[in-house]
Amino acid sequence: MDKVLGIDVGGTSIKVGLFTPDGELLEERKIPTPALVDDDAYAVVTSGITRVLAAHDAAPADVIACGLDIPGPVADDGTVGFLPNIQLDPEGLVGAITATFPRATVAFVNDANAAALGEVWGGAARGVQSFVLIALGTGVGGGVVTGGRLVAGAFGAGGEIGHITVERDEPLTCGCGRHGCLEQYASAKGVVRLYLEECERRGVTPVNVEHATDTLSVFKALANGDECAGIAVDKMCDYLALALSQISCVMDPELYLIGGGVAGAFATFAPRLRERFQELALPTCKDVRIEAAGLGNQAAMYGCAYEALRLRGEA
Amino acid sequence: MDKVLGIDVGGTSIKVGLFTPDGELLEERKIPTPALVDDDAYAVVTSGITRVLAAHDAAPADVIACGLDIPGPVADDGTVGFLPNIQLDPEGLVGAITATFPRATVAFVNDANAAALGEVWGGAARGVQSFVLIALGTGVGGGVVTGGRLVAGAFGAGGEIGHITVERDEPLTCGCGRHGCLEQYASAKGVVRLYLEECERRGVTPVNVEHATDTLSVFKALANGDECAGIAVDKMCDYLALALSQISCVMDPELYLIGGGVAGAFATFAPRLRERFQELALPTCKDVRIEAAGLGNQAAMYGCAYEALRLRGEA
Repeated sequence: MDKVLGIDVGGTSIKVGLFTPDGELLEERKIPTPALVDDDAYAVVTSGITRVLAAHDAAPADVIACGLDIPGPVADDGTVGFLPNIQLDPEGLVGAITATFPRATVAFVNDANAAALGEVWGGAARGVQSFVLIALGTGVGGGVVTGGRLVAGAFGAGGEIGHITVERDEPLTCGCGRHGCLEQYASAKGVVRLYLEECERRGVTPVNVEHATDTLSVFKALANGDECAGIAVDKMCDYLALALSQISCVMDPELYLIGGGVAGAFATFAPRLRERFQELALPTCKDVRIEAAGLGNQAAMYGCAYEALRLRGEA
Repeated sequence: MDKVLGIDVGGTSIKVGLFTPDGELLEERKIPTPALVDDDAYAVVTSGITRVLAAHDAAPADVIACGLDIPGPVADDGTVGFLPNIQLDPEGLVGAITATFPRATVAFVNDANAAALGEVWGGAARGVQSFVLIALGTGVGGGVVTGGRLVAGAFGAGGEIGHITVERDEPLTCGCGRHGCLEQYASAKGVVRLYLEECERRGVTPVNVEHATDTLSVFKALANGDECAGIAVDKMCDYLALALSQISCVMDPELYLIGGGVAGAFATFAPRLRERFQELALPTCKDVRIEAAGLGNQAAMYGCAYEALRLRGEA
């Protein structure tokens, strides 16, 4: 029976999803790995996968497609760009995979782009032709789908929603070296920073924030009527709505999906986000749907598997 | 012999292009028309076209595709939105066209979107899979092509580049009711206004500007060393580069084409535009090409013909 793999490539482990070609997730398993740059490391990956297959009475030759989602740019033609956060030799890993799974079509996909495709295959974007996923996590990523196809971009920057400029006067520098990127306000780190800044401005003691990305405490404070938390979340929604209004002037999608860790509080901030979007967007497209993503942190695993299947011509 | 029509629908006339299916323009003719809302007006159009066909030894039955570009939104599904600047009954006109040219596949395309497709068929984007055309005219329009296909948008707002917000603090209101749209600075009207404003600020007498969209005089002044013209064109380039840098974060095209009347001065402002883009864009995609469009005011006529042919499955 044909099988499809979706592999989340992280810094210290990979997460393997074993799927049927119809998109049913049979098993998900984490495999701790060293840096993916030599044969020993590749063998850890391929033998780990082979064991997962065996547990489902499947052989390496049953794998027809294998997607890998990675935290870095992948261009329209599949070229992998610079990966600052992981050690990975893409060619070596592909070589090892095709040697072990000879029938498999292999595809690299940027992680946020993969998450968008995952929502198409098994999440909140099933049957949707054009939408944009915005993943509000440690950073802000995104994936753009139009005409049912991913827009990876000529330089792999398609869906880099987190780097839309929303505040030209921002004095702080973004990780990309520029100023006033959406990511500086709508990431988990951004929301926590906006909260602490507002508390400082007012001279009030903030609630206990566990770490730089602890948005849970900020949203809990908001639920308890903390005005500074209210201001922080309003600012986040304002900047996010502005970025969405810019995207609509470019691609005019039928749907926005909000994912990532911060989206755990989607029900709390969605009314404000939708209201601000209505105010800021071009009137023609102000009624676009803004919804929560459906697959959580499995989305990228689904999506890279789907893209490999699509490349093969079977999705 | 099969023929293809591209029809530019304007306020007081239509312009008909007769093409071969390979994209060779056989003839271009202007037909003055009353408001396109009744049978008499439709007959003026169809009989005018029939005469053009006859001059090329072709009959109405030779027309296999007929595109119409219109100054208003057309959604991904072909639905025509509100048309503020012309009187047109889309259904009636299509009925008259299909009655006269029974084999023809008919398609409506927004004019700026059509111009982008025109550049694919016979202009500066031949063979390019992903690019954005920005038409700097009386207003600022745009067309987005990705994976070789037009992105018309769920509400017909795909490529509404002119309404990307580039200056939230702008006190003047844009035609769309919002503030700080690119169109307010990079349209012909915008450039002339920026020039006159700078002259007033400095208390210097501007050169003679013939009308509100006379950028020719502004660029002539620039060539003669007029500092206010220099400031105006710098501002235009700054805002345009900012908008392009936002687009790159969404779909990361391989090429930007600058068209429209203002692009007559492309050679003058291109170096400044490219320099500002390099400074403002996400580093990954800062080396994207920024070039002049190739087809001038024939682009939309080419493009709507091409889209109708594509809908038929022959392009």
